[in-house]
Amino acid sequence: MEKFEITILGCGSASPTSLRHPASQIVNIREKFSMIDCGEGTQMQMRTYKMGFQKLRNIFISHMHGDHCFGLIGLISSMGLLGRTAALHIYAPESFEGILQTQLNTFCDGMEYQVVFHPLQTDTHQLIYEDRSMEVYTLPLKHRIPCCGFLFKEKPTLPHIHRKKTDFYGIPNSYLNLIKNGADWIMPDGTIIKNEALTLPPAPTRSYAYCSDTAYNESLQPYLKDIDLLYHESTFGTEEEEIAKLTFHSTARQAAIMARNCHAKQLMIGHFSARYTDINPLLNEAQEVFPNTIAAQEGLTIQL
Amino acid sequence: MEKFEITILGCGSASPTSLRHPASQIVNIREKFSMIDCGEGTQMQMRTYKMGFQKLRNIFISHMHGDHCFGLIGLISSMGLLGRTAALHIYAPESFEGILQTQLNTFCDGMEYQVVFHPLQTDTHQLIYEDRSMEVYTLPLKHRIPCCGFLFKEKPTLPHIHRKKTDFYGIPNSYLNLIKNGADWIMPDGTIIKNEALTLPPAPTRSYAYCSDTAYNESLQPYLKDIDLLYHESTFGTEEEEIAKLTFHSTARQAAIMARNCHAKQLMIGHFSARYTDINPLLNEAQEVFPNTIAAQEGLTIQL
Repeated sequence: MEKFEITILGCGSASPTSLRHPASQIVNIREKFSMIDCGEGTQMQMRTYKMGFQKLRNIFISHMHGDHCFGLIGLISSMGLLGRTAALHIYAPESFEGILQTQLNTFCDGMEYQVVFHPLQTDTHQLIYEDRSMEVYTLPLKHRIPCCGFLFKEKPTLPHIHRKKTDFYGIPNSYLNLIKNGADWIMPDGTIIKNEALTLPPAPTRSYAYCSDTAYNESLQPYLKDIDLLYHESTFGTEEEEIAKLTFHSTARQAAIMARNCHAKQLMIGHFSARYTDINPLLNEAQEVFPNTIAAQEGLTIQL
Repeated sequence: MEKFEITILGCGSASPTSLRHPASQIVNIREKFSMIDCGEGTQMQMRTYKMGFQKLRNIFISHMHGDHCFGLIGLISSMGLLGRTAALHIYAPESFEGILQTQLNTFCDGMEYQVVFHPLQTDTHQLIYEDRSMEVYTLPLKHRIPCCGFLFKEKPTLPHIHRKKTDFYGIPNSYLNLIKNGADWIMPDGTIIKNEALTLPPAPTRSYAYCSDTAYNESLQPYLKDIDLLYHESTFGTEEEEIAKLTFHSTARQAAIMARNCHAKQLMIGHFSARYTDINPLLNEAQEVFPNTIAAQEGLTIQL
């Protein structure tokens, strides 16, 4: 099966700890690499976990709190020092453009590649990126400042060739690529063998949603229905539900309720407050509601 | 003896590695804490090495390359989250003020403490900070952009009381603090006992110089004469002397020549290029010229 995997570079929250870096993840869909959020130290985490800098094409920034974006200028700058020539695309709330441009002007003068900024409307669910392998949509989140999550949807691959059938009809190998791309086969006597009879359906498509930072937000559910993996922030445990509410964050239990209501296949909790050195109480709390929950940890790669 | 110690938080250079963080150090002179440079990840390094955020009063930034300043906004921001109220003083090349102010406006709205910017003239040797314990001077360095090092000079402490003498003259304890601060003693018969006869000289003052980033620069020598510890960048080994020259950096050998010519008591080399995983060749090269050389490493604290 082709790759659809997520690697956690950081799963902490605003206050730094020696245990956890701030938010950042790499999403690899069929060897196309995207980053979500880029907290301080992300480039060092990429080194630690041997993620290539130059493979990154797109960076999606959820919101303008420092623990989600302070590492961006360092990463951009290092890519330049390492000789990058391919354009890098930054998708972020529109108010990020000014500060990014100021930083680029100040620190990246003469850099050999282009940084292309794509402003995001954080309060809508819309398609923001598309290529042959995937679509990326915003997810409107409820935080103290404009903030959106991201939904990654794999596009269907081409169907598989049904070798027994193509052999039976004597279809030459040189024609198989056309069959894979949808062509029918015309027999010498003019009979048409429809494409559906010559192919097997491709693997089901997969999807991943990143929801951080956000208060518990039921209006997200329609977008997350049957998601393969839901990453949902769990800054706090239920004992801090009031603080979660005040600061527009979620508890682990709320993340699990969201996963259950969306019929998610799996939940990953993250964005843990610095007060938790041991994450197990949060994990247990979530698993009581939604058993197929795992806790994010740095360096973890999960294959969908 | 009162504290004069330097802790290395990062001693790498521009390209990130999993071995070394970019430049940052803490200078503790009699429990007054200053930071020199603040590369990305410095706040995490402070956590790792248990350096208190709120003790910092002054941060000195040598120049505006990212590996010397990208961690500053994160550190400032975290100090705010952690409830700092005391003003923080930033000393940096004057062109840093604009970008710092833009970052503060964008990311630190409503923060409860004041960030005071002090612009530096990087091309002169001048006093930029003074308190009861120390003086800090700029050191004009030769780099690709305006850049200065920093010279920390301890001020003399008060003399020690010569207990045998004060006892001999029957001086009451309540008067000893005045003696310590320079008073003479008048005997009942009117005889004056001079202060010098009642005190012993204080410990000799100590000094530390930070020279990074810079090409080999003989004109620094007068400022560094008899320095207790010279931190001098050694981005490269002699085999890369041409690259060092082109990029306005120094080799380990050049750092050692500087230490020898200044009659430094000790040399610490640092700011190592990412190409060196093993620093020993650089250290050996320096020790051939100046035996009392050590290599910087993260977490190392050296007491003068």
